[in-house]
Amino acid sequence: MTDPGKHNHATVTYLPDLLYTGGRFESGVGLACDSGGRIVSLTRAAGITGEIVRLNRRAVLPGMVNAHSHAFQRSLRGRTEYRTSSHDTFWTWREMMYSAATRLTPDDIRDVARMAFLEMALSGITAVGEFHYLHRTAEGEPYNDPNLLSKAVIGAAREVGIRIVLLRVAYARGGYRVEPNQRQLRFMESDAETYIRNTDALRNEVNRWDADTTWVGVAPHSIRAVPREYLRQVAEYAASMGRIPFHMHVAEQPADVKSCIEEHGQSPVEFLNHEDILTEYFTGVHAIHISEAEARLLANARATVCACPTTERNLGDGIVPAHVLFNAGVPVALGTDSQIQIDLLEDARELEYHLRLKELERTVLPPSGDYPQTALAARLFDCATINGARSIGAESGRLSPGSPADFFTVDLDDASIAGAAVADLISVVVFGLSRTAIKDVFVGGKQIVSEGRHAHQEETVTKFASLQKKLWAG
Amino acid sequence: MTDPGKHNHATVTYLPDLLYTGGRFESGVGLACDSGGRIVSLTRAAGITGEIVRLNRRAVLPGMVNAHSHAFQRSLRGRTEYRTSSHDTFWTWREMMYSAATRLTPDDIRDVARMAFLEMALSGITAVGEFHYLHRTAEGEPYNDPNLLSKAVIGAAREVGIRIVLLRVAYARGGYRVEPNQRQLRFMESDAETYIRNTDALRNEVNRWDADTTWVGVAPHSIRAVPREYLRQVAEYAASMGRIPFHMHVAEQPADVKSCIEEHGQSPVEFLNHEDILTEYFTGVHAIHISEAEARLLANARATVCACPTTERNLGDGIVPAHVLFNAGVPVALGTDSQIQIDLLEDARELEYHLRLKELERTVLPPSGDYPQTALAARLFDCATINGARSIGAESGRLSPGSPADFFTVDLDDASIAGAAVADLISVVVFGLSRTAIKDVFVGGKQIVSEGRHAHQEETVTKFASLQKKLWAG
Repeated sequence: MTDPGKHNHATVTYLPDLLYTGGRFESGVGLACDSGGRIVSLTRAAGITGEIVRLNRRAVLPGMVNAHSHAFQRSLRGRTEYRTSSHDTFWTWREMMYSAATRLTPDDIRDVARMAFLEMALSGITAVGEFHYLHRTAEGEPYNDPNLLSKAVIGAAREVGIRIVLLRVAYARGGYRVEPNQRQLRFMESDAETYIRNTDALRNEVNRWDADTTWVGVAPHSIRAVPREYLRQVAEYAASMGRIPFHMHVAEQPADVKSCIEEHGQSPVEFLNHEDILTEYFTGVHAIHISEAEARLLANARATVCACPTTERNLGDGIVPAHVLFNAGVPVALGTDSQIQIDLLEDARELEYHLRLKELERTVLPPSGDYPQTALAARLFDCATINGARSIGAESGRLSPGSPADFFTVDLDDASIAGAAVADLISVVVFGLSRTAIKDVFVGGKQIVSEGRHAHQEETVTKFASLQKKLWAG
Repeated sequence: MTDPGKHNHATVTYLPDLLYTGGRFESGVGLACDSGGRIVSLTRAAGITGEIVRLNRRAVLPGMVNAHSHAFQRSLRGRTEYRTSSHDTFWTWREMMYSAATRLTPDDIRDVARMAFLEMALSGITAVGEFHYLHRTAEGEPYNDPNLLSKAVIGAAREVGIRIVLLRVAYARGGYRVEPNQRQLRFMESDAETYIRNTDALRNEVNRWDADTTWVGVAPHSIRAVPREYLRQVAEYAASMGRIPFHMHVAEQPADVKSCIEEHGQSPVEFLNHEDILTEYFTGVHAIHISEAEARLLANARATVCACPTTERNLGDGIVPAHVLFNAGVPVALGTDSQIQIDLLEDARELEYHLRLKELERTVLPPSGDYPQTALAARLFDCATINGARSIGAESGRLSPGSPADFFTVDLDDASIAGAAVADLISVVVFGLSRTAIKDVFVGGKQIVSEGRHAHQEETVTKFASLQKKLWAG
């Protein structure tokens, strides 16, 4: 516990039954927050001064961080679960995704993003890494403001009240020796100069707003979509900017590996290592089809991997080798990606579960920490919080003095977690929580969800429903 | 639609925005129910006479059927997710399960079962097949009433208000050439005569209550736990009783297959076929480690398989070969089994998803029906409803005249399903629904869940929390 006398800026202290800090739940501990939206101290109930907000029958946990999102794909939920060819794979799904991507207006993009971010908030997510690749008109013309669509998405997150890093995507081509696809024109900034100029403009503009809630990172889409020279220039730009998040799809599909070897003579992570792309600011998204040697390269560079299991099972991508990554020391973050479900705890448990199905064993992932009985769950929860924050460059993810006051509460009497002992609660939350348990969500000390509802919920849902009707009518 | 003039017993008609019948959602259709708790007709809004209850912004779906449950295992949720040996498998988990099983009093068993059934109700489940193997004291002594514990579980379901078939388990030994395990004494009725006498007594007693909501089936635990002669006698008894459900764990673990071959010289399904156990009343639970030939034997006998993917992934059992079963024509039901999660829609989607992870393809399961875009989702939803009802001998599972009025409603504005077109809704429900969307649950026309809450929720949770404290203290 922090010495309560050490800080005196607390304007309000939240006092739940239980509070998750340091890998375990503590009872009788208050979360003292200042007016700037930061945690001042963790204080024993007896030592609390000033205003107390009691959260009875509630546990407080750090807000979750969604490190990989394509918000607009929320419009596709449930629309692609049928066979479109005799050999239906990711690549057929992608064509269906393009059908939405090419038809959304800037206002549509804001409306669908608001819907996705609202659902994130309701599920306990307080910060998102938005891997944003819609830049131009469907015909490939830049808008007057080349960042119009990026700003629509940022605006959506700000309206909902969650933090966002806009991971601005560089996309130059359909693939190595692949014919151009008209449906990708919207993503294209075919030279690095244009991409960097636009990204830098967005960065400067966003910095003038509120650097605490909104920031910008770079995201070369994939090795397939960005040629070597372009990639080098983006990496140079990122390095010159210092500590900005650098995200990239890596080895999601066997075809990604094959085409990388064909073009560069190396597997994806080897190639990125060779190009000096791997740093502590780098996040490889998916990293499913990688070797142990590649995991070691990621670990040596202190890079992060972002797994997206609910999407990866939906797309038939395969199973992230999380045991290999954990053993090598690579931090694993989590993302809701295609938004087929928005439930980061389901992603956390699948990280372990898919390996159980493969190995026919239990507790495949190596535990860590001082509390053996819940060490696995605590580690998976870290993936949804601390590792996500690391990946997107956020300060949130843990409840400790100086951190942003980003947290959510769960109802201890919810049927999905009722009866859990304090020592087991994180395990019950990670392996069993239903969204019905999530009651309050705070970002920077500001409450955005109360009793499971968001203030803008009705309007957001109504606008999204109209958009869906327009998009898919007939 | 039914001719509204044809029936005149309707006492109330529920009129939601959408109603799921015949594999699709219809709008403007009312569900007319009689005072006996049955559906009288499906009636176009204009033709409704008598009392109308409007369910605005709600869709009505048939109640789900949970075909395989061990209610008491709810007390283990989140308590077994750590490594207990260097090679941690189902069999180490089983020892931990025994630690709960051996210590529960009859009252405890009722309290934990109420908690599990309450959560089932909240998740849209209206009928359960309870595979019940706790019969005696921990020392192996029969209670004065040998069905005391069965009746505790039945009482729990009746208090919550869901239908139950008590699948009374026959358990004679730890395994073929396996030393007796003291921790199994509670399950044992070591001769078939005792088992049949007790089962028959329960059956007669239950029949005097309400055969519509409660009934009894037989459940030889597994080939491992029941020797051939015993199994034959149970099968004879079941046949003499006519149409009673006959459930059995089959090929959950590779070790189950190995020991069956060792003892009987045949794989599990071959052996059951040879013994004439497979009938249309038979359900093989799990059936993970079976061949195509075995799937054909099940299909020829018109037997059902009950998959339990949320448990099977938790226990590291493996992936149910649902594509093989579907192709052979075996109906697949679903069960929540160990209660690690109670979410039958998650089980439904995993039936497909685990195969996608294995095959690296999408839409692996063959669709059926007249609505190609949602045929896969509709088929998975049938697993959670119609096939479950078939497995446990219930009449529910579909909304049609003469069926019990067992149904649940979902809020069309819930963030998890908002914006779905009518034609896509079943797909969005199966692949994306969060429990927050489930609002009302009716069993036999009686509302047991309203706005996501059950009338006995607080008391049930409180009692369960006390039980957990007692069980796991220290």
